[in-house]
Amino acid sequence: MIVSLLTDYGHEDDFVGVMHGVIAGIAPEARVIDISHGMPHYGVQRAALVLARALPYVPTGVHVAVVDPQVGTERRALAVRCAEEDRLLVGPDNGLLSLAWERFGGVVEAVDVTRSPHRLEPVSATFHGRDLFAPVAARLATGAELADAGERVEPDQLQALDLPRARTEGRTLVAHVLSLDRFGNAALNVGHDGLAGTGLTLGRPVGLEIRGEGRPATFTQTFADVASGDVLVYEDAYRSLAIAVNRGDAGTELGLTPGDEVRLRSEG
Amino acid sequence: MIVSLLTDYGHEDDFVGVMHGVIAGIAPEARVIDISHGMPHYGVQRAALVLARALPYVPTGVHVAVVDPQVGTERRALAVRCAEEDRLLVGPDNGLLSLAWERFGGVVEAVDVTRSPHRLEPVSATFHGRDLFAPVAARLATGAELADAGERVEPDQLQALDLPRARTEGRTLVAHVLSLDRFGNAALNVGHDGLAGTGLTLGRPVGLEIRGEGRPATFTQTFADVASGDVLVYEDAYRSLAIAVNRGDAGTELGLTPGDEVRLRSEG
Amino acid sequence: MIVSLLTDYGHEDDFVGVMHGVIAGIAPEARVIDISHGMPHYGVQRAALVLARALPYVPTGVHVAVVDPQVGTERRALAVRCAEEDRLLVGPDNGLLSLAWERFGGVVEAVDVTRSPHRLEPVSATFHGRDLFAPVAARLATGAELADAGERVEPDQLQALDLPRARTEGRTLVAHVLSLDRFGNAALNVGHDGLAGTGLTLGRPVGLEIRGEGRPATFTQTFADVASGDVLVYEDAYRSLAIAVNRGDAGTELGLTPGDEVRLRSEG
Repeated sequence: MIVSLLTDYGHEDDFVGVMHGVIAGIAPEARVIDISHGMPHYGVQRAALVLARALPYVPTGVHVAVVDPQVGTERRALAVRCAEEDRLLVGPDNGLLSLAWERFGGVVEAVDVTRSPHRLEPVSATFHGRDLFAPVAARLATGAELADAGERVEPDQLQALDLPRARTEGRTLVAHVLSLDRFGNAALNVGHDGLAGTGLTLGRPVGLEIRGEGRPATFTQTFADVASGDVLVYEDAYRSLAIAVNRGDAGTELGLTPGDEVRLRSEG
Repeated sequence: MIVSLLTDYGHEDDFVGVMHGVIAGIAPEARVIDISHGMPHYGVQRAALVLARALPYVPTGVHVAVVDPQVGTERRALAVRCAEEDRLLVGPDNGLLSLAWERFGGVVEAVDVTRSPHRLEPVSATFHGRDLFAPVAARLATGAELADAGERVEPDQLQALDLPRARTEGRTLVAHVLSLDRFGNAALNVGHDGLAGTGLTLGRPVGLEIRGEGRPATFTQTFADVASGDVLVYEDAYRSLAIAVNRGDAGTELGLTPGDEVRLRSEG
Repeated sequence: MIVSLLTDYGHEDDFVGVMHGVIAGIAPEARVIDISHGMPHYGVQRAALVLARALPYVPTGVHVAVVDPQVGTERRALAVRCAEEDRLLVGPDNGLLSLAWERFGGVVEAVDVTRSPHRLEPVSATFHGRDLFAPVAARLATGAELADAGERVEPDQLQALDLPRARTEGRTLVAHVLSLDRFGNAALNVGHDGLAGTGLTLGRPVGLEIRGEGRPATFTQTFADVASGDVLVYEDAYRSLAIAVNRGDAGTELGLTPGDEVRLRSEG
């Protein structure tokens, strides 16, 4: 059975290693896949997006995510089953898991694991990855029933993220930055299907407008299609529209941060 | 069998990957757990603390640690057996392993592996993780006898760290910073048992004194119990007293570094 | 079967985790070893060197490397078999694999996997690690034939790196910086065999000349042989001549970057 991990714990401390240790102790046969531990601290939205995009490439299993600014407060701790592929998601009830369960057909069963019989006692106030989420996930990976992992919660009681939606104004596409990767590439809230009708054409110029300021760009297939330092608009590896600077960092060079509105107009 | 690794090698080079390769070649069935490779360069004390705190969460096995400023000199290279849980520790004889063996009842058997029959020749002067510690650990993981891994050393000849001890002066607790994690949280040399009699009460103010300067703080259970930017004193996930700034970095904001004396006085 | 990975994807995003997911889905029995994901972005030469040096310590298997500034263009995507040890290498045809195949006796069979039957469709323009290299490597790890992974290419058509060569001018050794590791240590293009006749003697001074400027140094076995802050010339863990600053960073302190010419003269 696969157990996957996605956190903001980084690699400078032993947080991730200790989670691996706990899982290895409970579920020695589980195969642990680290999706990433480099999520921005407090970056719930970014991590939620990464989880939803990555899981289709990870075999079905128990998928733990921990970006948890409210750890130690009354926020719920969850384990849920998705409608599709029998995927199990484990993490805090702060919206972090919500884009993933939307991707897999919604939640059919949910439990609050705050006082799970699988938890490690005493549960610390600050490291639920170790004391709650890792042991619950490991027990689920060994075949424990979801219903036995905690107290039942109605799926419609769970926290879900409410992301901005892109829209068109005449020939202009008004989109928003969802997240930035480590190269500074900015993913927008426009998927492959959202490209229809925008008039964007490969190799043609795009007028970008960021905080009222115009920026010339080109709609291309890949980075090497524009000169070094030039701005490109392209469909990224997850088929989202994205903005990049070839051999540069669009986040810093164009001043983009998550939530920013970006206006695009095909000039092809 | 578990082999765990803790080093300051980082993830930017191939040091860690090469250790994994060496272990996989000698002990293909071993499961390798990376506790962390982000220890500060030359941070022997920090790594010693992390090892001692993490191992109770890692299944018993062969535990390698490498933070080794004296690599290539005459310092001993060790493999030791702890009194409890049959844990084996492998690494340089510079105190790095000493807090872990104290945690597991002391050393009952020790060998100097500098000229171990398991070493990879030629042993380089700078990369004993690859040439000495990884192959020795891997052979131990396959069941090789500790006594055959090197030359016997008396346990009382080994280097141990001598950490400062906290004390009370009247109603004031005089403690020291042991280490900082990547979020800037500062762990002190006061464990759960050391809290008794300090008068610290959840939700009540604490007078902090750092280099003669007073800093208001609150003794709480978790970060979210104080406002963003406020200082808290709390029991961390390893049940050590610690100082943090909610959504901030106590290390930089309060100027704390390992070894610093900190005075705390309950004002509750 | 071993699958090893070496990339410049870093650990801040899900790129590496997604490659692990793809491999786990296709080849659940494969053991994946991360050689490193911290190669410098666009650092083809550095990664080629790291790959060639690391692989002798990694059990034979399928070895994937991805540092790929031309991803999405017409550059070939390769899977090749080396003459020695039956090693399989997978990655872009930009020289990245060439030092490794030279190390293992050259290429005896090569295929262009751009339109491999093993690829994940639609192949993105920017993430061939996920869509091309990981699935091809995983299929090879399960025993698929190399000839079935793509279209045959003549080995002499492949891109190879052309590195500068060290030379002697009288008693002066003229060498070049090949790469810098994360500690700032600079590896030169002089191997163990190249030391014969240079007159370099352990413990004796070396006159270093960098961009016309002289720098006193000592030829030693290891860092601790010189004072803190002093410059040393030594044989590194891969038996290459290297320049370091004890407890410092030679890259920044001496202004060294890959490709720089360095002149050394024994003053012993």
